[in-house]
Amino acid sequence: MASPIAIIQGANRGLGLEFCKHILKNKTPASVIATCRNPDGAVDLRSLVREHPDRLTVLKLDVNREEDIREAAERVKSSFGGVDLIVNSSAILHPTGKGETSLRDVSAQGLISTLTTNTVGPLVMAKHFAPLLQKGGGGFGQQPVEKVKQHSGIIINITAKVGSIGDNGLGGWYSYRMSKAALNMATRNLSIELGRSRPIVVCVSLHPGTVNTDLSRPYHRNVPKDKLFSTQHSVNCLMKIIETLNIEKTGKVYSWDGNELPW
Amino acid sequence: MASPIAIIQGANRGLGLEFCKHILKNKTPASVIATCRNPDGAVDLRSLVREHPDRLTVLKLDVNREEDIREAAERVKSSFGGVDLIVNSSAILHPTGKGETSLRDVSAQGLISTLTTNTVGPLVMAKHFAPLLQKGGGGFGQQPVEKVKQHSGIIINITAKVGSIGDNGLGGWYSYRMSKAALNMATRNLSIELGRSRPIVVCVSLHPGTVNTDLSRPYHRNVPKDKLFSTQHSVNCLMKIIETLNIEKTGKVYSWDGNELPW
Repeated sequence: MASPIAIIQGANRGLGLEFCKHILKNKTPASVIATCRNPDGAVDLRSLVREHPDRLTVLKLDVNREEDIREAAERVKSSFGGVDLIVNSSAILHPTGKGETSLRDVSAQGLISTLTTNTVGPLVMAKHFAPLLQKGGGGFGQQPVEKVKQHSGIIINITAKVGSIGDNGLGGWYSYRMSKAALNMATRNLSIELGRSRPIVVCVSLHPGTVNTDLSRPYHRNVPKDKLFSTQHSVNCLMKIIETLNIEKTGKVYSWDGNELPW
Repeated sequence: MASPIAIIQGANRGLGLEFCKHILKNKTPASVIATCRNPDGAVDLRSLVREHPDRLTVLKLDVNREEDIREAAERVKSSFGGVDLIVNSSAILHPTGKGETSLRDVSAQGLISTLTTNTVGPLVMAKHFAPLLQKGGGGFGQQPVEKVKQHSGIIINITAKVGSIGDNGLGGWYSYRMSKAALNMATRNLSIELGRSRPIVVCVSLHPGTVNTDLSRPYHRNVPKDKLFSTQHSVNCLMKIIETLNIEKTGKVYSWDGNELPW
């Protein structure tokens, strides 16, 4: 069987970078394709390439540009043939870097930018990479014995607990919350379409906890220390969940601790 | 007490037009402000103005343009002072007029257009009209006896059952479903922010059923005859719900029959 291939979208920092490191370290001989907007400026990714020149490929991809995504999918197709895992990791809280605390802070442009990066990007990734995931070797997740239920690939959309409508008791952060609620609908829709075709592609949304990244940095002082995860801890938890996924678990939102979240 | 004032956004046809007719007919002496992109081409609205010259005002407003919304709010403020009800009615299924049947039909541009009209528009309406709703006279809904629980205004976002993530068993219609899921999150967020300030503004999403309008026309042959509602029947049902709303019922999604829908 071919060695597994993972695409990490939004890999130049934060959770995306950590997914690359984790897979390279813990899943030999899996290959990683790391995408980011500006490979020349991605210092950490470049040093990771020097450590793993045969297993890590960096591809330029701006998730806001469908043309970039289409081209990246073509390059991956010709170099690798298929893919076993995609993690859609890149997200913004808001173009200003601060979530709306009240309706007064809402703007059409802020909403559209956030929806474009956090919601449209991951779904357009799924569109162009789904045919490659259907040619994957099922190298991630837990394959059931029954052959007809086995999956060829997995799509992970990184969501957030604040994107749960049912769990929303505080309000605020309009753009970010709405983008993640819509992303969860995309996950659900993808799980249905890609779950009924063969080979199966599994699709779930994962909530990484509150992680020490640039996105959440302005809010860290409000987070109890034991609730603010390092990227390592969060990715450890999420990879444990990913390695248990199969068709029975598709189309849901899971938190870092494995518990299902409400829509 | 001043007579109630309703703003119907997207009023040149379909449900929006019917809301205008219904309120003018059944809620004398309420005033209606009907907004649409192109008042000159809105034949039905213009004939309705001839019938009710003192009670119906038509305002030009493209929900995709925040500047239009801001200007409309200023005009309404100077002419009316406050507002009792806003119904966000305009929506598209997809810029092509057909919902995506599979991932292949998805495009970044189609997603962004649909999200802009169906999701961003209603929230930006809420932003600019919330101060006017807080100056409303509470002329719609069912006021509780306790004064501190009474509301000054109501926001209605017209959603759709296919925007319920939990209810989604069929997939497809990516853009439309995602736009309505995100709109439901907006409703939830609005209900929290506008429910804790005083005076209270109530905000709910309403599912009108499958209604005989241009939006659903390509799909009518798949709908059993008794499930395809006239705009009159749908608006009758929705206005009955609206006239029962108060702070206890805010922040939820209701179907035309009054039942709550899952997120």
